[in-house]
Amino acid sequence: MERKNAVLLLSGGLDSTTLLALATSDGYAVHALSFDYGQRHSAELRAATKMAQRYGAVQHLIARIDLRIFGGSSLTSDTPVEKDRELGEEDKTIPFTYVPARNTIFLSYALALAEVVEARDIFIGVNALDYSGYPDCRPEFISAFERLANLATRVGVETAGGPAIRIRTPLIDLSKRQIIELGLRLGVDYSMTTSCYDPSPNGDACGRCDACQLRLRGFREAGAHDPASYAAGTEAGAGSRTL
Amino acid sequence: MERKNAVLLLSGGLDSTTLLALATSDGYAVHALSFDYGQRHSAELRAATKMAQRYGAVQHLIARIDLRIFGGSSLTSDTPVEKDRELGEEDKTIPFTYVPARNTIFLSYALALAEVVEARDIFIGVNALDYSGYPDCRPEFISAFERLANLATRVGVETAGGPAIRIRTPLIDLSKRQIIELGLRLGVDYSMTTSCYDPSPNGDACGRCDACQLRLRGFREAGAHDPASYAAGTEAGAGSRTL
Repeated sequence: MERKNAVLLLSGGLDSTTLLALATSDGYAVHALSFDYGQRHSAELRAATKMAQRYGAVQHLIARIDLRIFGGSSLTSDTPVEKDRELGEEDKTIPFTYVPARNTIFLSYALALAEVVEARDIFIGVNALDYSGYPDCRPEFISAFERLANLATRVGVETAGGPAIRIRTPLIDLSKRQIIELGLRLGVDYSMTTSCYDPSPNGDACGRCDACQLRLRGFREAGAHDPASYAAGTEAGAGSRTL
Repeated sequence: MERKNAVLLLSGGLDSTTLLALATSDGYAVHALSFDYGQRHSAELRAATKMAQRYGAVQHLIARIDLRIFGGSSLTSDTPVEKDRELGEEDKTIPFTYVPARNTIFLSYALALAEVVEARDIFIGVNALDYSGYPDCRPEFISAFERLANLATRVGVETAGGPAIRIRTPLIDLSKRQIIELGLRLGVDYSMTTSCYDPSPNGDACGRCDACQLRLRGFREAGAHDPASYAAGTEAGAGSRTL
């Protein structure tokens, strides 16, 4: 049976790696797409490349886009990343790490690739529970993009009836714990994934930014050990050493 | 009175230059955005830069994006541009010059810039009459993007009631003739604009691709002379010399 093409947005983090394992296990021929968007660290792109290879992606494209020309976010500018915030706080406000229109831009590129490789499924690892107040991780945003995608493209215009292109978000309603449990069932090696907003030069996670805190809590709740490398001296690093 | 910020997608062609003249004359403080997307010719970017200066844009950003990694269009790949097609033919099929998801990508960047400069208005010079079968020039595509924009952004989330962000398409229902008549009333110097899909190395328009044919017909119908440079030996070029 011929496998169906899918485009999958792959950051190299925990969520998108779990998504890759899931789409592959569901039989899709995955065209992985990552972005070099002037983020401070390239650890995540290295992880994405390794994961695309490991899961036998048909291809792994890295699109270079320069969000820095817009400024406006600590992931792409010189504003410090927030550390040691209380979990829960990040659900109430849109954080400084928000990159303007990021998922809109990423999905637009995914749509271009989907047109070219004739994929009808676009996978994105957004998560509405842990979305930290990002407006473009919500289900209503995803539905609106799906509607747009079908109006924007040849295949959408030429297909009568239901939507020709689907934005697939299998992680959207899962807690971090549930995502980790799913990944562990699928055999994901999480030591190769990164989540940190502010890793040290050798790639160790800080253990203190929102992304690290959410990840570590997820592993704790799943009763599993996070095999990623954390900087020594952080709680997570200390924890890792004693396990 | 403080002028309202607007983001305006400026290709340097006839339509977007007319749009720039119109938005400026309506009192907007224009943040112009162009794309270096691996198009074959940079004449249009040079024209965009000149026009942004002439109309006193607050800034003119050129975002470098590489659509070539996707292939799939003669504007960005090595497939020849179609010449001497009958006008009318281009309305029935999606032409080879279609760039996958191009307006979706361009509007996504415009949205990012709008968030950063706190603009509520995004101008794009799409045209539904002469859209040559491009699905992402239709009014229903624009409405869907406007809806998405308001779900994707801080300002959309934080604003109750009507849409906070508007996609402005004042040219969408105009014929090429009407666009040219509008521009001439606003004093646009069309000698500096380019429209050609396949200009010669010195920047002369070919006079034969769909874009040139539509433009030339528009000037004929407006009873005006097209002051752009056309390659010698083309009908348009010959016409220009005798005028």
